[in-house]
Amino acid sequence: MKKVIVVGGGFAGINFAKHLANNKNFEITLMDRRNYHLFQPLLYQVATAGLSPAEIATPIRTIVSHAKNIKVVLANVTDIDRANKTILAEGTTYRYDTLVLACGAKHSYFGRQEWEEYAPGLKTLEQATEIRRRILKSFEDAERTDDKEVQRKHLTFVIVGGGPTGVELAGAIAEIARQTLAKDFRKIDPTRNRVILIEAGSRVLASFSEDLSRKALQDLENMGVQVWTNTRVTSVTGEGVELGAEKIQAATVLWAAGVTPSSLCQVLKSPLDPQGRIIVEPDLTLPGDPNVFCLGDMAHAKDKNGQALPGLAPVALQQGRSTAKNLLRDLKQKPREAFRYLDKGQMATIGRKKAVLQFKGIEISGFLAWCAWLFIHIYYLIGFKNRVFVFAQWSWAYFTMKRGARLIVDKEWRSVPKSTLGQKK
Amino acid sequence: MKKVIVVGGGFAGINFAKHLANNKNFEITLMDRRNYHLFQPLLYQVATAGLSPAEIATPIRTIVSHAKNIKVVLANVTDIDRANKTILAEGTTYRYDTLVLACGAKHSYFGRQEWEEYAPGLKTLEQATEIRRRILKSFEDAERTDDKEVQRKHLTFVIVGGGPTGVELAGAIAEIARQTLAKDFRKIDPTRNRVILIEAGSRVLASFSEDLSRKALQDLENMGVQVWTNTRVTSVTGEGVELGAEKIQAATVLWAAGVTPSSLCQVLKSPLDPQGRIIVEPDLTLPGDPNVFCLGDMAHAKDKNGQALPGLAPVALQQGRSTAKNLLRDLKQKPREAFRYLDKGQMATIGRKKAVLQFKGIEISGFLAWCAWLFIHIYYLIGFKNRVFVFAQWSWAYFTMKRGARLIVDKEWRSVPKSTLGQKK
Repeated sequence: MKKVIVVGGGFAGINFAKHLANNKNFEITLMDRRNYHLFQPLLYQVATAGLSPAEIATPIRTIVSHAKNIKVVLANVTDIDRANKTILAEGTTYRYDTLVLACGAKHSYFGRQEWEEYAPGLKTLEQATEIRRRILKSFEDAERTDDKEVQRKHLTFVIVGGGPTGVELAGAIAEIARQTLAKDFRKIDPTRNRVILIEAGSRVLASFSEDLSRKALQDLENMGVQVWTNTRVTSVTGEGVELGAEKIQAATVLWAAGVTPSSLCQVLKSPLDPQGRIIVEPDLTLPGDPNVFCLGDMAHAKDKNGQALPGLAPVALQQGRSTAKNLLRDLKQKPREAFRYLDKGQMATIGRKKAVLQFKGIEISGFLAWCAWLFIHIYYLIGFKNRVFVFAQWSWAYFTMKRGARLIVDKEWRSVPKSTLGQKK
Repeated sequence: MKKVIVVGGGFAGINFAKHLANNKNFEITLMDRRNYHLFQPLLYQVATAGLSPAEIATPIRTIVSHAKNIKVVLANVTDIDRANKTILAEGTTYRYDTLVLACGAKHSYFGRQEWEEYAPGLKTLEQATEIRRRILKSFEDAERTDDKEVQRKHLTFVIVGGGPTGVELAGAIAEIARQTLAKDFRKIDPTRNRVILIEAGSRVLASFSEDLSRKALQDLENMGVQVWTNTRVTSVTGEGVELGAEKIQAATVLWAAGVTPSSLCQVLKSPLDPQGRIIVEPDLTLPGDPNVFCLGDMAHAKDKNGQALPGLAPVALQQGRSTAKNLLRDLKQKPREAFRYLDKGQMATIGRKKAVLQFKGIEISGFLAWCAWLFIHIYYLIGFKNRVFVFAQWSWAYFTMKRGARLIVDKEWRSVPKSTLGQKK
């Protein structure tokens, strides 16, 4: 029996494990810091009160409970010793024959980590509920004040980064304000908010064609989003953002600008690309170490033209399957196959009935693209139940224009915060 | 136009406001620290991963959005000046003609507030998700260790307090372990956990008849819950609980023992009962102050036998309606009516197909009581959508024995915790 350790229960890790489920030649340990697989493409829906966290997250144990050869361990991996073929997690050492690393990426503030406090990114459920809290709280704060300037600050939402996440957030916030909240406020007019999308490059959705990028821009502007391209953020504080000589007062600033791979990349002592990703061989292993695979957002793999593959779910899913197949080939002593990405295209949603979709030569935008986006996302949501519930939630939201998860939930659960306990006694 | 301020969006406050919706004689300001109305009777379902927070919480603005005379303010009320008829909230002073206080209750540790850290209570959504995190984390920690003693500690769940909340939590945790998680763990046998329910009095569900109390005990024991009556907790630490000379090692301790009314009771300078509740007149006003009403869990109102009414949802709902009616009588210059509680009985659920129900002379237990419990709770869940979704969730859970919301969500959303930021630079 081969001991396989998989680190990371994202698209790559889960799909790898599923392909080797109940195969008696492998004893698989699936490790993750979280007890759930997160469907990241819908995270912005949680951040904008459209879905609840449980609707886009499935316990990893549930996903692999049928597979008797897979053991799930909730643990944070902190070190890897390739010479001795061991990893260290929560003080315990685990031995592997084959190691599959698929730990994903987190947000990057380009060395300005202190901006995170004022501009959360969107990679985890905790961040999504924090963003939801901030957005909803801003409207409440605006309603409570009579000071027009303070009100304007609370009704200003700045999103930094014009990629798919930034576009999705900007569109959803504009929709919440114009449709969901419009009737619920007495003093403020939620339609008078400002949603400003800031992009350092020359256009939004730069990975799409210029045509679709222009379509998206038009849709955003029709929804009331102000798009500022060629604009660089030079400072983020509790007051708002600075853009060189300019300054915007904003109570809510969201970060969708840069990603950096998991910090585990650094402990591997293997060459990295400029973004910090592990450069892998054609079979997705580390150079000179055929027992360690590196998949998904933390890997720099190349397509047939020698270009680095983007950090997309289809890439991760296919890499998981490819790695499982190569391990089966190892068993039969056949040579491994190089990973070939089958292009599934890319898509981004902008709002109700508005999306852009690019697949090989085909480019679609508008309602049809939105339907395709909806179908594909629900189809890929792991678990039949989640699919049914998310579909029901969305049908409900679509017909009533209501958002179901509009909760401002605090982080503090204690009735008397710990820090003040000493003082009170 | 009479200026009415309502503090608290619970059952009493919401029901009061709904009865005066769109009545042009009243200008109502509804204040709450939270932006949602919480259906507290189902909070234990969130704590035990059966439902998501959004399924038992509805934004207050949504509930009253149709009522043009109701303004909602998200604010924490900190002081009340009855002489000048004003209240203070977040630094702003609001004037009232009539004040309706309905701020509910929170958990009480009988002066041992430092126990909260180790034994969270169940009154808020934040506490519910914290309890869910602790329960699920315990199973994960147990799975990771090889030390049998450590494992036993992680698989021991102590619930302090044998009232409805304690019984519901104990039953649900026993069910999770035996049914939901049974197939998902490899190393531990989740059925080998210990769920210990500790009650200082001589029986669980003391507010019910002795017969139903015995039924509940039997059901709990059949489900594997160990019930320790006549037992008093003398210490709670990170290691577990002490019960006089005895000591139990438990990673998870939950508090369902005592409640204390909102701290606003203290600023009113009006007589309190031994539990700290405001003693109110028959029309639910403060003695000598017919413009200030006090409803729900923070009020000590008497039934026809002179007994204090319990802190139940039907009492709060009826008090809200009664107060609205009395304000309408004021308008017509008719004398106010004394509040009369129409007994709706009481019920508690123990587990799948197991509940107890007591209504006037009738006592039911088992499957029939459970059906009644299910029907009544879904019926009273505010909002059609929530009803439909909760019903769907439960049907799903019932047939598949799965729990949908098994997420361990951290409190920290920052990728680099704030406290370590200075050190890293």
